[in-house]
Parts: sequence; structure tokens; C-alpha cells
Amino acid sequence: MIEVKQPGEYSYVFSRYLDPIVKVQPGETVAIYTKDAFENRVSKETDLPSKIVDGNPNPQTGPIYIEGAEPGDTLAVHILDIEATRDYAVSAHMPGLGGLAPTSSTPMLNDPLPESVWLYKIENGMVTHNEKMSYPWRPFLGTIATAPKMEALSALTPFDNGGNMDTPETKPGNIVYLPVNVPGAYFFTGDCHAGQGDGELCGFALEISAKVTVKFELIKGKAIKWPRIESPTEIMVIGSARPMEDAARIAYSELIEWMCDEYGWDKFEAYQALTQIGKLSVGNMVDTYYSLIAKIEKKYL
Amino acid sequence: MIEVKQPGEYSYVFSRYLDPIVKVQPGETVAIYTKDAFENRVSKETDLPSKIVDGNPNPQTGPIYIEGAEPGDTLAVHILDIEATRDYAVSAHMPGLGGLAPTSSTPMLNDPLPESVWLYKIENGMVTHNEKMSYPWRPFLGTIATAPKMEALSALTPFDNGGNMDTPETKPGNIVYLPVNVPGAYFFTGDCHAGQGDGELCGFALEISAKVTVKFELIKGKAIKWPRIESPTEIMVIGSARPMEDAARIAYSELIEWMCDEYGWDKFEAYQALTQIGKLSVGNMVDTYYSLIAKIEKKYL
Amino acid sequence: MIEVKQPGEYSYVFSRYLDPIVKVQPGETVAIYTKDAFENRVSKETDLPSKIVDGNPNPQTGPIYIEGAEPGDTLAVHILDIEATRDYAVSAHMPGLGGLAPTSSTPMLNDPLPESVWLYKIENGMVTHNEKMSYPWRPFLGTIATAPKMEALSALTPFDNGGNMDTPETKPGNIVYLPVNVPGAYFFTGDCHAGQGDGELCGFALEISAKVTVKFELIKGKAIKWPRIESPTEIMVIGSARPMEDAARIAYSELIEWMCDEYGWDKFEAYQALTQIGKLSVGNMVDTYYSLIAKIEKKYL
Amino acid sequence: MIEVKQPGEYSYVFSRYLDPIVKVQPGETVAIYTKDAFENRVSKETDLPSKIVDGNPNPQTGPIYIEGAEPGDTLAVHILDIEATRDYAVSAHMPGLGGLAPTSSTPMLNDPLPESVWLYKIENGMVTHNEKMSYPWRPFLGTIATAPKMEALSALTPFDNGGNMDTPETKPGNIVYLPVNVPGAYFFTGDCHAGQGDGELCGFALEISAKVTVKFELIKGKAIKWPRIESPTEIMVIGSARPMEDAARIAYSELIEWMCDEYGWDKFEAYQALTQIGKLSVGNMVDTYYSLIAKIEKKYL
Repeated sequence: MIEVKQPGEYSYVFSRYLDPIVKVQPGETVAIYTKDAFENRVSKETDLPSKIVDGNPNPQTGPIYIEGAEPGDTLAVHILDIEATRDYAVSAHMPGLGGLAPTSSTPMLNDPLPESVWLYKIENGMVTHNEKMSYPWRPFLGTIATAPKMEALSALTPFDNGGNMDTPETKPGNIVYLPVNVPGAYFFTGDCHAGQGDGELCGFALEISAKVTVKFELIKGKAIKWPRIESPTEIMVIGSARPMEDAARIAYSELIEWMCDEYGWDKFEAYQALTQIGKLSVGNMVDTYYSLIAKIEKKYL
Repeated sequence: MIEVKQPGEYSYVFSRYLDPIVKVQPGETVAIYTKDAFENRVSKETDLPSKIVDGNPNPQTGPIYIEGAEPGDTLAVHILDIEATRDYAVSAHMPGLGGLAPTSSTPMLNDPLPESVWLYKIENGMVTHNEKMSYPWRPFLGTIATAPKMEALSALTPFDNGGNMDTPETKPGNIVYLPVNVPGAYFFTGDCHAGQGDGELCGFALEISAKVTVKFELIKGKAIKWPRIESPTEIMVIGSARPMEDAARIAYSELIEWMCDEYGWDKFEAYQALTQIGKLSVGNMVDTYYSLIAKIEKKYL
Repeated sequence: MIEVKQPGEYSYVFSRYLDPIVKVQPGETVAIYTKDAFENRVSKETDLPSKIVDGNPNPQTGPIYIEGAEPGDTLAVHILDIEATRDYAVSAHMPGLGGLAPTSSTPMLNDPLPESVWLYKIENGMVTHNEKMSYPWRPFLGTIATAPKMEALSALTPFDNGGNMDTPETKPGNIVYLPVNVPGAYFFTGDCHAGQGDGELCGFALEISAKVTVKFELIKGKAIKWPRIESPTEIMVIGSARPMEDAARIAYSELIEWMCDEYGWDKFEAYQALTQIGKLSVGNMVDTYYSLIAKIEKKYL
Repeated sequence: MIEVKQPGEYSYVFSRYLDPIVKVQPGETVAIYTKDAFENRVSKETDLPSKIVDGNPNPQTGPIYIEGAEPGDTLAVHILDIEATRDYAVSAHMPGLGGLAPTSSTPMLNDPLPESVWLYKIENGMVTHNEKMSYPWRPFLGTIATAPKMEALSALTPFDNGGNMDTPETKPGNIVYLPVNVPGAYFFTGDCHAGQGDGELCGFALEISAKVTVKFELIKGKAIKWPRIESPTEIMVIGSARPMEDAARIAYSELIEWMCDEYGWDKFEAYQALTQIGKLSVGNMVDTYYSLIAKIEKKYL
């Protein structure tokens, strides 16, 4: 097993313009160490993010160069395990962020909401703020990405290369399929969460630093347009866009494409089937694009 | 038990301007007969909806006058049972409708999608089109509404009075809370579905005519702003708006209000809790407003 | 000339369910008296709208029955003149309304903006708050509507029947075309403005009570889907929807339809021409639907 | 006067990761040569863009390094002149692009619109397709940008660094203010248009190759968040976002900020003034973000 720790500065973009920190072979098991979205700099209630994390949120570990990956391939990431590397998780209400607050892209004239830090203890399979607010340990990767073809996208952005999707389905046991846009794929991950509700409402989930164990698999000559996820029982597509209905349109139309390409469905038959048995939930409603997850159970394919 | 059948013409608006078809007492068990969204006029593949259902879709049974209901009260509708009154369900792809097609509110210059009718047999707890497309019987009410205060809203519209929400949670075993805006509440229901995926993607679920058994309960002097649903394990709010993020904002902010009013939460504490443990899924992405469902499990309250 | 004053209560919906207050012949000149959006109840800085106008904003004069109007016709309203019936205009910043503030359809957790009333003197062709804020007299009708086919829509709503479009083009010298959905058309108007910027940003323009002089013309057997406006030099369509891009899509696609039907254009040729020479501005960004105005100069037709 | 021609490959991103092609001093007059959005490769009706321009649309000339520019400064670009470097302009209807067609971000299942190329002759101050479709010469820069702080954004994207705003106000006689995010500012321009309607409806305006004459001015220590434009009579802000109402919110709220910072207005006074006298029109409704232009005449400041 290879261990990957960021050698110098973390990355704040998904970008081909950075130097790979390591090269790995498909098939190898890789343990990747990640910082939390606050750069591990918030650990008590007085560590206000607006004072501490100015300008550089969501540090990523990467780019990791995948040997043999070429544009037009698909990178399958088998998520094997996520361990917290500390015994607490942190959330925060931060001015300018959140699904029920004005932001830089939905500006309003109102005074901002009060800032606050929320600490949770991780123990006994639970993530606990106090007696009332105690939630199961449900870890997943907030960000998982390849590099875009030409762009360098902020680590806050979810898009067709994956990125900051903040969807609970990027979790151990599932396989995430990402498009390969550049030689070596340039893989990034970070922003691990000890758990999160649908939408990541206030903008920060149960943020943790973590050790992430994955195995890369390369699917040669198979191109996909948007991130796909496979669980033992379901196939899923994540669409990220604004307004939210466009994210929904992307997610469902790409799921139709998947059903047609690999499972032999006719386009309109798949449209009909998803009408009756598809699932559609919200990953995030707070990032630069909103992420929606469309699913169908494999038993209906 | 009272049986309610529409005496004359069905209603195509949620409206105080119609005459009640029956008066019922809170506490009585009421069986209501409903037509399907096609007015029961589509039963074979050649019954094209665009030829048949012009202008009058989604017939409603009602208004039902609830004795004692006054503006400012809440009407609790206990959904006890839904039986299909025939042995088949119908869906259709119809020009001008659908989540992946141009509509009158999202017009485009493209030619419309081909029209088609999809028939399903209901038997043995399954709703079956063919060997591949066979889904469990999961009945619910597509529309459930009280009358607005002054408006008469199309039976295609979901809004703060309930209406055409097309959310699978309006099902037997759950309680739907609706605002009372006019004396007698003026209750409507219809558009029953034998099952539906999230989003009702093509615009028509597994449409059935049905016998719906409910019990009304009146909560005096308690006003709510948006429809609420209670299952044995969860509380939920349905927000209906466009764009979809506004539906999400309504659903989550009203759920916060519910947590504060009845469960003693502080506003920002509830905001934090829903960030970590809330659920948010799409009811419909095809009606005049989109409907999103925000939930929290009761055990976290 | 016929003078029309509301005999009793004003109307707060565009609705066929109300009794006409007067019947007029096409071709007659009609002077209609209207109240302002605050029901004429705000005349000094301490008259806070949130205390005064609860629940009943935007009173309309009507319905006016147009003799001979049948569903499928178009009602052409020639706006001849608008006079203020008092010497001041009023605007206000009111909690829950405004383009840069949370509202009931875009709710947020922030405290509301401070409420305030803004008074303007009308004299010498100017509408003047103080030396700095003094604007030209540019009167227009905030609302102008026919009744919908079955619905009763709030007087705050702009839609395919016209309504609360809040677009400066419904002004003297222009002709507004509205669909006739019910026998007699049921015409409503109100909400006159002494002037307004694009978007009606805070939610209240320069609100006045007024005497509106119009002449009705009936175009038999000609149906339109959305409101059209003709000035001496331009033709225009108003689309009202959310999100705003859907209003834009409606406005431009209906303008293409107009160019094809009455000016002999091919659909794709019109699409190309509007790309190069069309105009698209925002009427309101504060009402229940946003209203956008698409235009082309007649000399390019 | 300095002449700037792209030495090698054009740029398809706004990016700090590219090498500057030239360094210029503030105050110098600079003539910049630009290719059209089709890379100058479409000149007859059979040159279908979908065959020719795959993957690399909208080539930019740049980056141009502005001596002395530091993050936190503002770059003022005085647009002095735009000349076409050929005698024709080109537009096209291309599958996957357009305001009234499905796109990659608003996907639908319909067949695409037919592809077509539209040629226009430039002569006598007019841009002429045929007798009916002949429009005035109204040249402007479709794209004008500085580099983002960390990101490399597609040349198709308009954002807070300017970019592909496609607004007719970036024209000779006006000054465009852009934020400086990196040392040297890294200026880009391209995508010149011989004219365009509001919204750039089909996705391609009257595309030309051009010689653009500008003068750069550096405003030291003055940071702005979004692009600003000054004409002889107006000040304007361009907001770019989706949905379109967010672009409108950005444009108007930044205009309020400008009024407060430099013209001594109070925030709520400016909100009120823009309500009554502001202008709001659509630059583009087809790019990766929509661009809206908010304006106020200087005489009202």
C-alpha cells in the first residue's frame, strides 16, 4: 500500500497546471491523507473561520498521477475506507455561505447571520455535539476530482470532473467513475465529512481530517461526461449546475445515457422507467454549483 | 363511513368559488372516489392524451367542506388507505410536458418528443408494463389541497395550500397538515398514483382512479404556512416554487420553524442539525412549481 | 366618455368569479379610476405598510365587461392617458419584499431590512423626493389584465393574462394586447406608477392613485398566448416566469411567433434576427413571477 | 502605439498559468488583433461549426502583462476603437448552443435544431445578410478579462474577472474596469462582434476578426469585485451568474456599492433610487453564466 501525504502546499484548484505529487499504478491500494475544509485550523469555538480561512478554503491532496491514464478513458475510484485522523469534527456558520443566507452569488442587503463554530466529538460510532445533537458516523469524501481539460477550477466547485460535490454517496463501498481529461488524470481528494445531511444546509458538514484508502482502476477507451457512482445495489449520476433544475436535468439525462449505453435500454423506455422508479436527492445546495444525485436500483435495470 | 363521489363535473381548480359537494365532521372516516389525471379517458396505447385531454387535466374530487374549520386552523388529513378502482395504471409521454422536454414555461424551438402511452397491469402487489418494467405498488395522492384564501389555483399547481405536489409521502400511514384559509377549508384530492419515482420525470406517474380513505382532524387556532407531513418516524415540509433552490429554501426554512415552534429548538441550532442530518429529495420537477421535501427523523428532535 | 369608479370593494384577484362593475362597448373611451398599491393608505413616513396593508395589497379596478368579447379573441387596450389624482407618489422598503431581500419565496434566516416610507412630490413634470432624488414623470400601469380561463390569480401575479407585470411599456401611446379567456374578457387595471426603474428593485415604484384613459378594441377570432405590446416604433412580448431565464425564453419565443404569424418570417430567420437586433430588459424582479420584455423595432420587420 | 498579435497558439482560458505574450505600460495605446469566435474558420454556408470548431471555441489574444499591476488594483481599459479586419461577419445556429435550445447545462431529450451558417457583408456602416436583415455597425468586445486569482476559466465563461460577458456596452467610448487578481493583471480580449441584440439569443452574434485599440490605466490600491463600465453618461455593473435573477442581484448590489463608495450615497437611499431610475438589461442568455447589466445615469448620482 502506498501512503500519500501532501509534500508542500495543498492545492486549492483542480488543475493540470500543478506538478503531480506522486505517481501510482492502477490496481494499487493507496492511502491518502487529507486536511479538513478549514485547513485543520478550527478546533475551538473561538476559531472563527472568517478570521482564519480567508481566501484559501478547501485544501486538496493532489494531483495524483495515474499511470497509463489518457484523455477519453474513465477513472474508477474504489473507495475502500475513510478513517478520521483526529477525534473531533467541526462545522461552522460563516457569513457569506449557506443555503438560507445571502452569498456572493445571491447577494442581499441584509446583515449577515451570526458566525459560530460547532464542535463534535467522534466516539463509539457517533459524532456528538451534545446530548441532543448526536449523529451516526457516516464518512464520505466531500471532494473527489480529476483535472479539467483546460480549466483550473476552484476546489469549491463541483462540475463534470467531479470536485466539490458534497454528496454522501462518495463513501466506502462505492465506486466513483470520473472522466480522464488529461494524461495521468490528475486525481484530487479532500474535504472529508464524518456525516452530512442532504444539501449541506449551512455550508459546512461534519468536517474532519482523514486517511482515505482507495484503489484506482482504469477503463480504457471509455469516455463519460459526468461523474457516475456505483453502489452494490444502485447506479447514480451526479449533475452539478445552477439553477437546481438544471442539475436535475443533467443527472437524469446522463443516467438515461448510462442505461442506454451499458444496459441496452431505449432512450424513451429509460425516461419512462426513471419516471416511475428513479430517485433524486440533493447533495449540496450551497456550493458554486448545486449537486443533485439521480439513481436507479440495479434490480430494475 | 361516508362515501364521497363527485356529483357532477369534477373540479379543475382549488377554489373557494365552487360549491361544496359534501360536508363532513372532523373525526369521521371518509372514502373519496377520484378520477385519474387523464379523466379516466386513456386506457389503450392509441388514446393519445394530446387528443383527448385538451385543456382539462387533473380532475379533482371536491370541495369537501370540513365542519368547524376556520381560517387560522390547520387541517390534519390522516391517510388511511388507497385502493385502485381498476386493474391498470397509465403513464404517457405528452408534448409540452416533462422534465427533459420543452414546456410552456421553458419553451424551446425544437420539435416535441414523440407522444406515447404506457400501460401497466396492477396485480400481486406489482405494477407491470412488461417483464423488465415491473414496480412495487406504492400508492399515494398526487394532489391534496385546501382552497387558497382568495385565489383559484389550477389543479396542476402545487403551492402553500398543498395541491399538485406529486410527492410520494402523501401516502397511507402518514398525516398531511394543510393550512385552513377559508371557512370549511374546502378540501380537494385526486391524481392518485400507483407509484412514482422522485421528480415524476416525464410528467405522468402510474396514474390510477382510486378510492381514498381518510380521516380529518381539526387543529384549532394553529396556523401553518406550508404543507407539513408526519410519518411514524419523520416530520417533513413540502416547498413548491421555481427555481428549484427556492423550493429547497422554503422546505428547509419551514422545517426549522416547525422544530422551533413545537420541539423547542433554537433557530440556528436547527439550521446546524438539518445540515448534518436533514434529508432533501425532489417530489416533482415537472409541475407549474417544483416540489421539494425536507425531512428530519423524529429520533433526532 | 364613460367614467368607471369601483362601486364597492376593490378586487385583489384577476378572476371570472367576480361580478362585472360595468359593461363597455369596444371603441368607447373609458376613464378608469385606480387606487395605489397601498390602497391609498400611506401618505406620511410613519404610515408603515407592514402595519397598514396586511393581506390586501394591490387593489384593482374591475372587472370591466367588454361587450362582444369571446374566448379566442384578443383585447387591444389603447392607453390614451394617465393622470395622477393627487400631487404625491409613495414608495416603501417593506420586510418580505424586494429584489435584494429575502421574501416568502426566497426565504433566508437573516433579520429583515429596516422598513421605511419614501414620499415624492409630483410637480413640473418631475417626481421629487429631495434635491438629489428627482425623476421625470413617466406614468404607466403596473397591472393590466384580463381574467384567466379558470383560475383566480392574485393581483400581485403577472402571467399569460397580463396582470402585475410592472413594465414601463404599459404607458400612454402604446397598445397592450391581452388574450380573452372568458366571455366579456373581464378587464382589470390598477397599481399606477409615476415612474419606475427596470426591475422595480425594492418592490414599490412611485405609486400613485390615477385616472387612466383607455379605448378597447376587439380583435375577433385571433388568439394570443402571452401579452403583447405595440408602440409607434416597436413590437414587444412580456414573458413572466421564474427563474428569470424562463421569462426570457417565453418573451423571445412568443416574439418569434408574432414575427412568423403576422410579418411572414420563418422561425429560424426570426431567431437569427432577434439574436442580432432584439432588445431584452427586465420589467420586474420582485413579483411572484419575474417579467421580461423582448422587443424588436418595426423597421427591422 | 504598440501592435499586439498572438505569436503562437491563441488562448482558450483566462489564466495566470500562461506566459504573457507582451508587456505594456499603463498609458500606452495598444492595438490588439483578435480572431473571431470560430477561429476565423467559418466563411461560407457549408463551414458547419460543429464540424470545424470542435472543442476550441472563442480564441483569445493574451495574456497581456500590464506593468505595475498588483492584486488589489483596478485595471481601467479605455476602449478607443474597433475595426473589422475583414469585410464580413458570421453567425450560426449550432447544436448544443442557444437561448431557445437544449444545451449541455440544460439538457433535453429532443432532437437538436438544424445547424446553419449566416453570412453578413460589412459595408456602408451596415452589416447585411439580405435586404430584410441589415443592421447598423455597432462593434464591441464579446470578451474582455483579467486572469482570476487561482482559477483558469474557459474563454466561454463570464464571471467576476470579466470574460465572455457578451454585453454591447464594452464598446468604443466606454471604460471597462476590471479587478487585478495577479501581478501584471494578465489581460485578454477577443470575440469581437459587429453588433448584437440583447441576450445573444442563438449563441453567436455578428462575429468578426478585428483590430481593437485600447489604452490601459491603472488605479492603484482600489479593489473592485465585479466588472464596471463607465460611458460618458452612465455607470454600469455587469453581474454574471445562473439563474438569471442572481446575475441581476449581483449587478444591482454592486452598483449600490459603487454609488456608496464613490458618490456618497447611503445604501438604502441607493436601493430606493435604483428602484425608480435604474436600468437592467440582458447581455447574454446563452453563455456558461448569464450576464446582466445594471445602470444609472450620471446625472442622477
